[in-house]
Amino acid sequence: MSVTGTLYIVSAPSGAGKTSLVKELLKQDGGIRVSVSHTTRPTRPGEVDGQDYNFVSMTEFDQLIETHSFLEYAEVFTNKYGTSRIWVEEQLAKGTDVILEIDWQGAQQVRKLMPEAVSVFILPPSREELRRRLTGRGQDAEEVIDLRMSQAVSEMVHFDEFDFVVINDQFDKALAELHAIFKAQRLLLTNQRVRQAYLLADLLSE
Amino acid sequence: MSVTGTLYIVSAPSGAGKTSLVKELLKQDGGIRVSVSHTTRPTRPGEVDGQDYNFVSMTEFDQLIETHSFLEYAEVFTNKYGTSRIWVEEQLAKGTDVILEIDWQGAQQVRKLMPEAVSVFILPPSREELRRRLTGRGQDAEEVIDLRMSQAVSEMVHFDEFDFVVINDQFDKALAELHAIFKAQRLLLTNQRVRQAYLLADLLSE
Repeated sequence: MSVTGTLYIVSAPSGAGKTSLVKELLKQDGGIRVSVSHTTRPTRPGEVDGQDYNFVSMTEFDQLIETHSFLEYAEVFTNKYGTSRIWVEEQLAKGTDVILEIDWQGAQQVRKLMPEAVSVFILPPSREELRRRLTGRGQDAEEVIDLRMSQAVSEMVHFDEFDFVVINDQFDKALAELHAIFKAQRLLLTNQRVRQAYLLADLLSE
Repeated sequence: MSVTGTLYIVSAPSGAGKTSLVKELLKQDGGIRVSVSHTTRPTRPGEVDGQDYNFVSMTEFDQLIETHSFLEYAEVFTNKYGTSRIWVEEQLAKGTDVILEIDWQGAQQVRKLMPEAVSVFILPPSREELRRRLTGRGQDAEEVIDLRMSQAVSEMVHFDEFDFVVINDQFDKALAELHAIFKAQRLLLTNQRVRQAYLLADLLSE
């Protein structure tokens, strides 16, 4: 038996602060990596292939679908986005925890293929604060902000499909809570049996 | 629905450092209390009734057994020890997390009555270090230490009946790990639904 990482799904509505939390978590904990999505959309200025996204053609993407190479994928307008199953499995096999930053629909797909995935939903601390975060620099029309709010709500109603819920009120507190989930998971009997196999054999020999 | 605490079972062999870890955890986290056991054994100098133990007569103890007032109890030589079900339930109802410091046999009894209890087993970092910790001031005969070691092993073989396993190598690290388990547990969907009921209603209203 070798050490195996845990697969995490982290979802949130826009404005919950998910990306900043995950970025800081990776800085604090070297045992976690984030999956880089595949996409068919064109590279934007400043984006790096293999870092921001794995940029592929539509033909390549469709071949990856046919070979069951995605844990989940979605079509957004005319572009496709997906999570590589192979990369994720390689990381987990090395004992690295992997985070997928995906929406509730992607989460549903991943749970079907990997029911052992641990899922976390991040919420903003209030409706008022969410609206403030979605308002941006105050240059958008009221209707645009209303639309963003209703999109956020339609994401948030799925919070109850997740194992854990973190409220991002104070950033540092939310970060510590998110990290506690990862730390506790590593202490589960099933994980410690593997991680501490030598110690356990040493302690339990008569 | 009101906030409910979580019941924790913390077990360990002598020498694992359980009592020091739990004591420090309580200092760091005001939302946790330790159950004070009932016992029929006589009070020792310096012990305070209601603090170290709830000291009761054998008649009182047996009445408590008959009225199903214990979550678990055991007879050690001629004395009886037990955990009050009523006190534990009162604390949980107030939203306080409760720790029971009991052995694997008590743990088995509690799991039958409260299968939702979360159990943690604490282990020493090596056989050598355990022996060192059980040697005390070096005034005991080799056979006495051997006996303590074999008692520790007979406790440790039950580690795999527990949900979580913490290795007490460096005290501060083990403390942080133990605390992470409590923090993560509070973030579980079932607990957050209750703790964050108002926030969720606010966020999800259209």
